[in-house]
Amino acid sequence: MPNSFGKLFTISTWGESHGGGVGVVLDGCPPGLPLTEEEIQVELDRRRPGQSDIVTPRKESDTVHILSGLYEGRTTGTPISMLVHNKDQHPEAYSEMKTVFRPSHADYTYQTKFGHRNPEGGGRSSARETIGRVAAGAVAKKILAEAGQVETIAYVKRIQDIEMPDDAEVTNALIESNAVRCPHAETAEAMIERIKDVRGQGDSVGGVIECVIRNLPVGLGEPVFDRFEADLAKAMLSLPATKGFEVGSGFAGTTMKGSEHNDPFENRDGEVRTQTNRSGGVQGGITNGEDVRFRVAFKPTATLLQAQATVDVDGNETELKARGRHDPCVLPRAVPIVEAMANLVTVDHWMRQHAQNRLFAF
Amino acid sequence: MPNSFGKLFTISTWGESHGGGVGVVLDGCPPGLPLTEEEIQVELDRRRPGQSDIVTPRKESDTVHILSGLYEGRTTGTPISMLVHNKDQHPEAYSEMKTVFRPSHADYTYQTKFGHRNPEGGGRSSARETIGRVAAGAVAKKILAEAGQVETIAYVKRIQDIEMPDDAEVTNALIESNAVRCPHAETAEAMIERIKDVRGQGDSVGGVIECVIRNLPVGLGEPVFDRFEADLAKAMLSLPATKGFEVGSGFAGTTMKGSEHNDPFENRDGEVRTQTNRSGGVQGGITNGEDVRFRVAFKPTATLLQAQATVDVDGNETELKARGRHDPCVLPRAVPIVEAMANLVTVDHWMRQHAQNRLFAF
Amino acid sequence: MPNSFGKLFTISTWGESHGGGVGVVLDGCPPGLPLTEEEIQVELDRRRPGQSDIVTPRKESDTVHILSGLYEGRTTGTPISMLVHNKDQHPEAYSEMKTVFRPSHADYTYQTKFGHRNPEGGGRSSARETIGRVAAGAVAKKILAEAGQVETIAYVKRIQDIEMPDDAEVTNALIESNAVRCPHAETAEAMIERIKDVRGQGDSVGGVIECVIRNLPVGLGEPVFDRFEADLAKAMLSLPATKGFEVGSGFAGTTMKGSEHNDPFENRDGEVRTQTNRSGGVQGGITNGEDVRFRVAFKPTATLLQAQATVDVDGNETELKARGRHDPCVLPRAVPIVEAMANLVTVDHWMRQHAQNRLFAF
Amino acid sequence: MPNSFGKLFTISTWGESHGGGVGVVLDGCPPGLPLTEEEIQVELDRRRPGQSDIVTPRKESDTVHILSGLYEGRTTGTPISMLVHNKDQHPEAYSEMKTVFRPSHADYTYQTKFGHRNPEGGGRSSARETIGRVAAGAVAKKILAEAGQVETIAYVKRIQDIEMPDDAEVTNALIESNAVRCPHAETAEAMIERIKDVRGQGDSVGGVIECVIRNLPVGLGEPVFDRFEADLAKAMLSLPATKGFEVGSGFAGTTMKGSEHNDPFENRDGEVRTQTNRSGGVQGGITNGEDVRFRVAFKPTATLLQAQATVDVDGNETELKARGRHDPCVLPRAVPIVEAMANLVTVDHWMRQHAQNRLFAF
Repeated sequence: MPNSFGKLFTISTWGESHGGGVGVVLDGCPPGLPLTEEEIQVELDRRRPGQSDIVTPRKESDTVHILSGLYEGRTTGTPISMLVHNKDQHPEAYSEMKTVFRPSHADYTYQTKFGHRNPEGGGRSSARETIGRVAAGAVAKKILAEAGQVETIAYVKRIQDIEMPDDAEVTNALIESNAVRCPHAETAEAMIERIKDVRGQGDSVGGVIECVIRNLPVGLGEPVFDRFEADLAKAMLSLPATKGFEVGSGFAGTTMKGSEHNDPFENRDGEVRTQTNRSGGVQGGITNGEDVRFRVAFKPTATLLQAQATVDVDGNETELKARGRHDPCVLPRAVPIVEAMANLVTVDHWMRQHAQNRLFAF
Repeated sequence: MPNSFGKLFTISTWGESHGGGVGVVLDGCPPGLPLTEEEIQVELDRRRPGQSDIVTPRKESDTVHILSGLYEGRTTGTPISMLVHNKDQHPEAYSEMKTVFRPSHADYTYQTKFGHRNPEGGGRSSARETIGRVAAGAVAKKILAEAGQVETIAYVKRIQDIEMPDDAEVTNALIESNAVRCPHAETAEAMIERIKDVRGQGDSVGGVIECVIRNLPVGLGEPVFDRFEADLAKAMLSLPATKGFEVGSGFAGTTMKGSEHNDPFENRDGEVRTQTNRSGGVQGGITNGEDVRFRVAFKPTATLLQAQATVDVDGNETELKARGRHDPCVLPRAVPIVEAMANLVTVDHWMRQHAQNRLFAF
Repeated sequence: MPNSFGKLFTISTWGESHGGGVGVVLDGCPPGLPLTEEEIQVELDRRRPGQSDIVTPRKESDTVHILSGLYEGRTTGTPISMLVHNKDQHPEAYSEMKTVFRPSHADYTYQTKFGHRNPEGGGRSSARETIGRVAAGAVAKKILAEAGQVETIAYVKRIQDIEMPDDAEVTNALIESNAVRCPHAETAEAMIERIKDVRGQGDSVGGVIECVIRNLPVGLGEPVFDRFEADLAKAMLSLPATKGFEVGSGFAGTTMKGSEHNDPFENRDGEVRTQTNRSGGVQGGITNGEDVRFRVAFKPTATLLQAQATVDVDGNETELKARGRHDPCVLPRAVPIVEAMANLVTVDHWMRQHAQNRLFAF
Repeated sequence: MPNSFGKLFTISTWGESHGGGVGVVLDGCPPGLPLTEEEIQVELDRRRPGQSDIVTPRKESDTVHILSGLYEGRTTGTPISMLVHNKDQHPEAYSEMKTVFRPSHADYTYQTKFGHRNPEGGGRSSARETIGRVAAGAVAKKILAEAGQVETIAYVKRIQDIEMPDDAEVTNALIESNAVRCPHAETAEAMIERIKDVRGQGDSVGGVIECVIRNLPVGLGEPVFDRFEADLAKAMLSLPATKGFEVGSGFAGTTMKGSEHNDPFENRDGEVRTQTNRSGGVQGGITNGEDVRFRVAFKPTATLLQAQATVDVDGNETELKARGRHDPCVLPRAVPIVEAMANLVTVDHWMRQHAQNRLFAF
């Protein structure tokens, strides 16, 4: 099932940029959870186009419809099918994409893999696919909030070389207080400036999103293949435009010596805790009760309002210059998507842990 | 199945550091492949302890036994069960580990997750678990070599701050010509010096392994969740001591502008190729025919011959100082493990691609 | 994923009897297949209510909408999402079902399992769930027809004690020539008479559907757990109202001696064939090139227009008498559902066989 | 993973009749369960050859070795690898099987599917494969006994036309009191007589095994595809020599009217119970607290000490007459295998139910 994710709390997304719509089927959701379309919509509104002046001005309201799995305002434990209709389609804007492969896009690989593809708006490779992830992630978020005060919070840490300080305060209010979703106001301002600047050049930029999951119980994650951080890594690298993932000390930690890197344990108010958190909240693949902290690298947007060298479907060398409305930087809109994927991974592992290790008391 | 990996070409590893042995069941292997225990052993010998003077001097011959799935020297398409007996066990060397949690190890998280754990030699969290991966990876390697001249080659790119030049020649012979498995002789020498140095301090170091997969067909990988690089990321983060993964331009690429980062297409001798390879061989989650190139961050070994602050199973704060024989740097022995995981991912996706997209010609 | 079926050719159904609709996401479909909504609709029309005077007179047009996965009339290899809106809902007809458990229905088990359920129209346990299976099965049917002239044909073999002769001719035209879908006209007439008779009593009947899959290649099915007949058995027992499955000689074959039961091989025009087919087309879990032949037992419909003893959600003993429009016999409408499930199993195993055993020629 | 079974409590079996041995990896077992090799051995001894004078006289001790997953006599939650060495091999007894296809065996289908097969002793299609199932089933049995007094009990209900009375007492002691494992002494005697009789003719017989699972909680099983009875059906049809499965009223129930077949609910001592159990303990795919009762059809053994018409690998028509020691009737030894598979299904669904529906109390 190439279009499904999760072992017990599973999402199956479907839909292309142009066509009947995009959607998701969420299977395995615990029953009895109060849920409304409005709660889903809040998260979708954080990822939709046109929400600020530094993202694509496309007008997509992305209104979610829950088609199944709820009764009298609560989940029933049966599949939750959610649908967002497509709108604002201008197929003519994509006529060139039928015959010319956009550089660093999926046109060429799709064409070769499948032989027959939907070129309009990138088809299945469109970022609209992430709508289903965000919708399902909103359900996961609610489960985590009700079940254990778990809070997942992502933000733009760096745009190109503009990086916020490590010790800046991070709250949802601060993150949502500006268009770029960086909680440090001063840095945010510089980032926004930079984004507007490159947009003016018909160019684009990338950067790094950091995410922290707070208040996790000890014990989530499996020892070998399905390590908590391994599943997070897969979740993040499954997002469009991502090129890297690191947890805790990450790549920078490789320059330290073991004596500098290890996290000593201490007894803090009767709990086993680490004095530092270079492990990033996971040890041996399993959460240790500290904050899980990871970062995701996003490349600069591939679509440029500049001429680029490429070839067409017949192999002729040519040039392509995008028209239309595009994001000069995907990171502000990717923040809720990163949170959604992290929440999906967390609920899935919570259920797995419960099934095997909290079922019988021998 | 927390101890299985792969959708169609699937491995299930089992076993602890101390006990009857470690092993793997490889399910889904195509039939008819010529295979010998010797071919498996070659790869196991690359990861075994005691192979050089910069790795742990433990004497483990790690001799593999193929128990099933072969007949008259060829695979039969049924499960291939491979077993390596445990030897050279000194349970007394681990007596402290029963009661004291080693910092930045899995002792505490295992204890809390499962309630009951095997503390000897780290139990299931021992690096011996990777024997099964390497054994199965050797089968994958042979399939890829026979089927399409695919070659997967990993090497130590950096130890702490000692990094080999990007343009150094990379061949298997160069990599295997020194103990640290860095193909650049001069850099290798400095790395070895550094490792011996920190070992003398009872300390440890980490670094970065780079891996390249050559001669892949276009079309491997699924568009959404099971992207080729997403499955590689999961595979790599599932290895002990890893903290990060990046493909192509990775984290460094996030500082570039789109116009600098995109890979222009060209027609090279009738084939669609990219002029540069910042994509790292994958576009939209699917291989594009260029080299797949990725890097994995390994933290410094957690086991130190120095006193470290920690707590015991009753919550008392205490100190722990490892005894015995340990790797001051895991990277040289991790090189064949990275290759093994990459080969497992590649064969799995090759089979998936074949099943869906090369089955019927409509 | 409790609501998914299939390993490579996978369906995920969703939806309740009352609510936004019912649907299915089909993942893993090969690309390039010509497909229209009309082809899906043909099969849905065979299962819809109101199609004859011996099934429920409910008026449900069950019009299918393909929301994704097609481009210019061909599949793209991405998920095919299909939706059928719900109509003709009379929630008041189900008001009693909120509080009273219908005998031999799923009301009590759902209530206990999930704690919170949708009682309207049986919610997820409604036979409307099978719409998604039939829609996806229509795609599988087309693949099989185009790829290898495989033909799956089911029919009503027996209603209560009224059974058609074993040697009667079986064609699609004969099956569709009467309301009960029994290819033997004389038997069909008696069956229809019986069904009308019990309906007049407010009662119901069951029977046996037989299904044969013709022109299968040798080699489909896995040797151990995922035997072709084991996956058929699961597929059939996953249908509402089924109580049994048998393949080939089935239960009757258990009274024979081995010398009577074995199927001798012969060389027929250069092919290895069996002289008889008590194996039912599978040997060791794998198709042997003969017709796969199996039978499915359907119990009499549980919903009766008669008073029945039961209890309510508070544990009070009470009586329940269904109102409204119900099928006195589910078998005529179950025929296309049995075919759909058989086709889904077949395509799935075809892809699995191709992936492992037809990928590389060593 | 064609050689794995179960979603959360998963077994992967491996091994052929001739070779290093047969075994199983059990993944997902809850930690802390006291377990010994002796407990496993008890069940293996019930299925081993040579245990009575009506089964094959082959001498196979089938001694189990637990290689991993235990520490100090308790499960650790990591994979339990169990191995039984092969012994008593007479490859020469199988020399003909290399070139001649045994009727109603898997020789021809394996050869065609895989191209390369192990013909010795039937290779992977040997009944020795079920050793791994029984070993893992013994763990499941222990979990169920400790967790909820669940008891799974199977017995030979019928051999050819010799059937025990429906109302006979059924206890483990009665079942184990005779060689054929039928709890009704008089019937057992007639069955044994019949088996000896056909063996004298070089022939074989089949029959029906019935199984009942007592004391199950309400709520196991998933509503749609993974119905409790659907997973049982798959489990049973995955056993060698099975041709049919029925639950509750089964095929016989199809002759009843709905008013005769439905199970009225009643309030029995404060619990919702059914007055009859034609549902067989499952309603809507979910256990309802009554005994789960099902029957499995086993065909007569295919191996006969009589000449049979067949063809060889080159397509020449020829005759084959088995030599050596064979079971004239597989049912007595299949009883513990049926129990094992039922217990595996039950534990798996128990864990699934716990994960989704007993995790959070909203």
